[in-house]
Amino acid sequence: MADAIERFMEEIEPLLIEQRRKRHQYPEIGFAEYVTTYELSEQLAGKGFEIFYGTDLLTSDERMGVPDAQFLEQQEQRALDYGVPPDFLEQMKGGHTGFAAVLDTGKKGPNFAYRFDIDALPIEEEDTPGHVPAKQAFRSRVPGMMHACGHDGHAAIGVGLAQYLAKEKGHLRGKYTILFQPAEEGGRGAKAVVDKGWLDDADYFLSGHVGIHDLPSGTVAASTSKFLASSKINAKFNGKSAHSGLEPNTGRNALLAAASATLHLHGISRHKDGATRVNVGTLHAGSGRNIIADQALMEIETRGETNKLDEYMQENALRILQASAAMFDVELEIEHMGKAISADADPRFAEIVERACEASTDLAIVPYLPIGASEDVTYMMERVRERGGKATFMIFASPLPAGHHHPRFDYEEQALSAGLETLIRTTDYLLKEDGGREELAG
Amino acid sequence: MADAIERFMEEIEPLLIEQRRKRHQYPEIGFAEYVTTYELSEQLAGKGFEIFYGTDLLTSDERMGVPDAQFLEQQEQRALDYGVPPDFLEQMKGGHTGFAAVLDTGKKGPNFAYRFDIDALPIEEEDTPGHVPAKQAFRSRVPGMMHACGHDGHAAIGVGLAQYLAKEKGHLRGKYTILFQPAEEGGRGAKAVVDKGWLDDADYFLSGHVGIHDLPSGTVAASTSKFLASSKINAKFNGKSAHSGLEPNTGRNALLAAASATLHLHGISRHKDGATRVNVGTLHAGSGRNIIADQALMEIETRGETNKLDEYMQENALRILQASAAMFDVELEIEHMGKAISADADPRFAEIVERACEASTDLAIVPYLPIGASEDVTYMMERVRERGGKATFMIFASPLPAGHHHPRFDYEEQALSAGLETLIRTTDYLLKEDGGREELAG
Amino acid sequence: MADAIERFMEEIEPLLIEQRRKRHQYPEIGFAEYVTTYELSEQLAGKGFEIFYGTDLLTSDERMGVPDAQFLEQQEQRALDYGVPPDFLEQMKGGHTGFAAVLDTGKKGPNFAYRFDIDALPIEEEDTPGHVPAKQAFRSRVPGMMHACGHDGHAAIGVGLAQYLAKEKGHLRGKYTILFQPAEEGGRGAKAVVDKGWLDDADYFLSGHVGIHDLPSGTVAASTSKFLASSKINAKFNGKSAHSGLEPNTGRNALLAAASATLHLHGISRHKDGATRVNVGTLHAGSGRNIIADQALMEIETRGETNKLDEYMQENALRILQASAAMFDVELEIEHMGKAISADADPRFAEIVERACEASTDLAIVPYLPIGASEDVTYMMERVRERGGKATFMIFASPLPAGHHHPRFDYEEQALSAGLETLIRTTDYLLKEDGGREELAG
Amino acid sequence: MADAIERFMEEIEPLLIEQRRKRHQYPEIGFAEYVTTYELSEQLAGKGFEIFYGTDLLTSDERMGVPDAQFLEQQEQRALDYGVPPDFLEQMKGGHTGFAAVLDTGKKGPNFAYRFDIDALPIEEEDTPGHVPAKQAFRSRVPGMMHACGHDGHAAIGVGLAQYLAKEKGHLRGKYTILFQPAEEGGRGAKAVVDKGWLDDADYFLSGHVGIHDLPSGTVAASTSKFLASSKINAKFNGKSAHSGLEPNTGRNALLAAASATLHLHGISRHKDGATRVNVGTLHAGSGRNIIADQALMEIETRGETNKLDEYMQENALRILQASAAMFDVELEIEHMGKAISADADPRFAEIVERACEASTDLAIVPYLPIGASEDVTYMMERVRERGGKATFMIFASPLPAGHHHPRFDYEEQALSAGLETLIRTTDYLLKEDGGREELAG
Repeated sequence: MADAIERFMEEIEPLLIEQRRKRHQYPEIGFAEYVTTYELSEQLAGKGFEIFYGTDLLTSDERMGVPDAQFLEQQEQRALDYGVPPDFLEQMKGGHTGFAAVLDTGKKGPNFAYRFDIDALPIEEEDTPGHVPAKQAFRSRVPGMMHACGHDGHAAIGVGLAQYLAKEKGHLRGKYTILFQPAEEGGRGAKAVVDKGWLDDADYFLSGHVGIHDLPSGTVAASTSKFLASSKINAKFNGKSAHSGLEPNTGRNALLAAASATLHLHGISRHKDGATRVNVGTLHAGSGRNIIADQALMEIETRGETNKLDEYMQENALRILQASAAMFDVELEIEHMGKAISADADPRFAEIVERACEASTDLAIVPYLPIGASEDVTYMMERVRERGGKATFMIFASPLPAGHHHPRFDYEEQALSAGLETLIRTTDYLLKEDGGREELAG
Repeated sequence: MADAIERFMEEIEPLLIEQRRKRHQYPEIGFAEYVTTYELSEQLAGKGFEIFYGTDLLTSDERMGVPDAQFLEQQEQRALDYGVPPDFLEQMKGGHTGFAAVLDTGKKGPNFAYRFDIDALPIEEEDTPGHVPAKQAFRSRVPGMMHACGHDGHAAIGVGLAQYLAKEKGHLRGKYTILFQPAEEGGRGAKAVVDKGWLDDADYFLSGHVGIHDLPSGTVAASTSKFLASSKINAKFNGKSAHSGLEPNTGRNALLAAASATLHLHGISRHKDGATRVNVGTLHAGSGRNIIADQALMEIETRGETNKLDEYMQENALRILQASAAMFDVELEIEHMGKAISADADPRFAEIVERACEASTDLAIVPYLPIGASEDVTYMMERVRERGGKATFMIFASPLPAGHHHPRFDYEEQALSAGLETLIRTTDYLLKEDGGREELAG
Repeated sequence: MADAIERFMEEIEPLLIEQRRKRHQYPEIGFAEYVTTYELSEQLAGKGFEIFYGTDLLTSDERMGVPDAQFLEQQEQRALDYGVPPDFLEQMKGGHTGFAAVLDTGKKGPNFAYRFDIDALPIEEEDTPGHVPAKQAFRSRVPGMMHACGHDGHAAIGVGLAQYLAKEKGHLRGKYTILFQPAEEGGRGAKAVVDKGWLDDADYFLSGHVGIHDLPSGTVAASTSKFLASSKINAKFNGKSAHSGLEPNTGRNALLAAASATLHLHGISRHKDGATRVNVGTLHAGSGRNIIADQALMEIETRGETNKLDEYMQENALRILQASAAMFDVELEIEHMGKAISADADPRFAEIVERACEASTDLAIVPYLPIGASEDVTYMMERVRERGGKATFMIFASPLPAGHHHPRFDYEEQALSAGLETLIRTTDYLLKEDGGREELAG
Repeated sequence: MADAIERFMEEIEPLLIEQRRKRHQYPEIGFAEYVTTYELSEQLAGKGFEIFYGTDLLTSDERMGVPDAQFLEQQEQRALDYGVPPDFLEQMKGGHTGFAAVLDTGKKGPNFAYRFDIDALPIEEEDTPGHVPAKQAFRSRVPGMMHACGHDGHAAIGVGLAQYLAKEKGHLRGKYTILFQPAEEGGRGAKAVVDKGWLDDADYFLSGHVGIHDLPSGTVAASTSKFLASSKINAKFNGKSAHSGLEPNTGRNALLAAASATLHLHGISRHKDGATRVNVGTLHAGSGRNIIADQALMEIETRGETNKLDEYMQENALRILQASAAMFDVELEIEHMGKAISADADPRFAEIVERACEASTDLAIVPYLPIGASEDVTYMMERVRERGGKATFMIFASPLPAGHHHPRFDYEEQALSAGLETLIRTTDYLLKEDGGREELAG
């Protein structure tokens, strides 16, 4: 059957590339992936999958950092203008994007779950000849938006996996659930999907990320850990405006409070127990040059190598924000916008994936590479492992001209093939080995 | 003739109020006063004034802080949508707003110049019952824009003055130039008007500001001084974005540079020689929560009681901006956006205005009130006085529910009548006294 | 008698210079002027003055910013080593320095009070050939201490005045009180003297300061105002030490709290109503390079053109200190160390001094020069004026090679003669004019 | 022979405790260990060791952070007053403390080197009943100084080891060098000892630290790693003083520059490659409350898990210091005060020490514990390993009532016995196993 997989990979490669580039040109940010959801689900139509949208996919209240209503309405209008059918849009309205595709073979066998995240970032993509998407004419067509983290490729792998499952349906046992998750950036979507129960009965959970390590494409890490736990908060300072020339002392300066908070947040002490992070990613304050600023809005995140370390960071961050408000006699509002936890892949996947891919000529499996970033996939992994299932998160490495979230971010598309092939071979291996479950449990 | 003026004031008052409220509802910011320019010039049509628009009013290159092309195009479209005729708009395109209205009697006599500024501010007007414009239904109809400094009233006084001059044309000698100046906020428009030569041959320059001092309306200060010199600069920090979790050390953080600059700018040492000011009015930085911010834009102003003090502030500000860039290893771009100088009113106006208004029953003339703010009218006053003319800037006081540039700013409309009456009576007095010039020179 | 004064001035000049230079060589800081007090009082011995020391001069509890007991004991030992008799020292122990010298003529007449401050500063005096005290060998002999504000000269004028009064005793009427006040720097001594009642029955209060304005020596301002009100506070942050490599997160960093407080204090907003000042003069924190600092001590002062403005500054300063403690989770202790209030000289002194000095060939009297600094003499002036007396504070100008409190501060000794002559002539004038009191009241 | 070691340990324990407590009572800081050096070398007298002092021990110019001459002279006087013979002191003058003790058996065999650091810290020791040294009357007798890192115990182990070697001299082969190193705190002494060649021919280098991990005493780690590389720098800002009330703008504020540098140093971005540290341990600035501070001195250290990471920190620190100077227009002087590098223990010691100590009933050997701090012993380890020798650094764990460098730091004295026993048994094992070298090389 190894030959069969190789042949499938050859056939599927053009689709993978086409799908990746299509997604790359229409980047949409979290909870606004209206066109993305529509076009991806169109790819799966008629292939035997049952599709679940909207509040069937995720619990509305468990989403975090949902954009405001006005923005979503604009985006929904954009989707209609683009050609998404009104009745299709209806079920996604108000930021209920993404979908689950379920293939139930009806035969006894293990439950597999796969997750692909599909959102983009508010970054203006570089437009220079050295940037491959620009040179090869699939650069982002949406000003200020970019697939700068590789989720375009994740979506493409998801489509490729669906093609494989549909094609091999007759040979398969068990149930296969592909989750196209919205709003991974900022850790905003996964928890709402988990809350809906999609991971409750998964025996095997397979997922992964393209890039991360600048290694030859074809290199795949069977597992990772060192997921940073992360908290996302918005801080809003409310002061009082005044004419900055006539009576500066009567104002209460929200911009200064935010500036002070920023410096102090970045100065939170390192922790003896491991890696931590903090970032004030955006700061918007003030209404005019000669007006004491009465408002300032900051988007902040903290991270920690463990959940405890992230709590340490968050506790310090909140104290600093309150003290900054007190420093300038302004009011503070805090809003919690997203969260990712720390989690571990099942360590035995190292051996499983290695054996599963022995037959491949294109893959170089390494047992483990650290991730060192946050991913809300950890909510899914945790749920699977709590329920007795096995979960891993792979890394599909690629040479990287620039880091993730950089305007020049890109990767080699062979990494997508490598990722898809690894997922397929691992599925195939687990299935053959009498469900593989016993082996893992051993 | 005093009786005639009183009668005129009674007739004109409804127009003053109507014009003020009309302007209040359509606030437009500096160099985008397209509707304002059109509607004000319509008021003067057919009254014997020659009107000068666009580059006849101001030197294009001497304008400071002109909004970017995209914004101006949007505003021009808005003006067309509102009903400004396309050919009228044509001559203002690209931010050439405002106009000069000239009444030449053809009879030998002094040259009078008057200046009224017409721009609004990017402030969201309060919408509570206690706020008179809200209660009386003339609150701003443009979201986020507001006449929060009283220029709506200045425009109305200008219309009233034009009515008076048109009506009395037969009795007048000399030449009368009314300047409706754009973009006073930020000190961006006056220099470009001065450069065009409009003040070069003025014998008398009369101008003024509503509000400033919270005194009973009807109180008018014949002159002021303590104009703060002011410099307006934009600072842009350019760094390098990076994923804030994966590799925070590879970014160069523009947001932090701006935050540090902000704190240090507000800490510039007081100066022994007198009052100074500094304000970072706006700060916008970063593109996403989990991205090291690669850009930050700050709108800054400095002020000083004298030109030297403002230079001291600006010199320190520039050093701090450069050091902040060095602190975070980012690049700095500086743009000079506006400037106002310090100036003095001719002190003898105190006596002139007092005598001129002796007959009035409504006016309480005080010789002098300090202004303590910046005003680019100083460029005009300086030019007039350099050329041997006499210049004053009056204050039309009013009880103020909130300070200038505050969302609840408002004033009593009697202050507008008081202002107009004072301008008319002073003109009348100077004209009668054989040009008055000799007297002043004495 | 004018001739008599001129003759006296010629005789006294060598003593003035000798006394000034003697004091300059033995600078002592506030409440530690043990040698200074002893040597000055020795100069007045046997001249008919009654001398009041220790708690007869000042109320112990009303002193502010008294150095700690250990330091005072060291200083007392130093004084003993220097040669101050033990029984003389006894009455000054614990920082009760300075003295009052009273000459009561027994004849009916006005009560005059004079004040001379005698303390130095913790500044290392410059030792370069261009610095006159270094070149002429009267540079400070106490390392790290310096008469950098001119109080050495004030003490000398006080001795000169005592000589004059002693010599002319037979011709005088009324009572003459010379106050040699300790601890003017930091506004720490005057209030304790006032509290003792020394100013309660003064008809005329005359005082002054050498330097301030860089004008030819001989120029004397009859009065001043613009005394800045001032508050002196010490802030101590108490945190928790920890090894900075092993467990930085367990410390609570007092040094960082102080650094943050410093930046924010210097950023307190300017006030529309007039001049303000703030200074963190000293900061001492931490015990070792690799230890998280658990203590930080700051010496802070605020000033304002009016008492209200100083209150504004102090209120902001206290809020900032508290917020800085909260920012770094450390404790804050505040100690109030000194205070000066704003006050005005009686404006009619301008005329009095001018007339009094008409006969002088050496003096150039100007009615008024601003001081722009703080002086706790204001407590005395206020008390005198409350009780119906007349008070002034003169300025004895001199060319200044460097500003007050600078290591190269110096002045021309002719300024001391000018000061003494002005005080004598004004006293003489007031006395002759039948007490002068009536005239002032006119 | 195991029995022999156990018997020796029983005999030596009282001496270990006595020596530790003696040292604890006379803490001396780095390069001022005059009494410590004298008293320790007295303990070794007449036991067959050749002793090397002063510049025979270390290269004068390679010492870092040597205290200034005045301080050293005071300390030398203190040592004389204490009873150190003048001729003994002579060879240590100017901060040349510590000594090497060499026992050459004259028989062919391996070269062993041992290192014990002997300096204390400028910390005031706690004086509460709960603190064992206070309760048992061996608290520090030097105000402000304390053995708060356990070097008192290291010195005691060194004396115990010398006793053992002297006693067993007849049975030993090879050469034994015991280094009593000054100034470990701040990483100031080791490089100067290494430079003198003491480690060039060592076959085995054994060293260790008491405490670090809060584990039962008796627990000994055979090796460690995760030494943080570290750089120690002093920064001095030189500005210009001015009267803070009269002319604040003419000063150039060194205190503000230091405060700003402090905040920004603590905000250096985390690094993706591992742990980093930064600390501003002390800050001293300013000369008086009402004087703009013209000087500020900071003691700073950076650390990194690797030499590269410490370089990253230092590079950023230097840029920040320069920018802070530019921010306030003051001058900056940098002095490099100490350095420690990262190093690894030879991993095979884990097995060697375990086997060596098998016979012990008191020791619980663990192969490895991380240290997570900086130690200039790394210079010695690196030199040994470069030359082909084997080096380890052990951890003699103990329950810790408070962390290292804390005023309440203490440890159980059994940890000293455990440390000494481990060093003896490991030496014994290596010697027996035919020099052991072959085994390690295998």
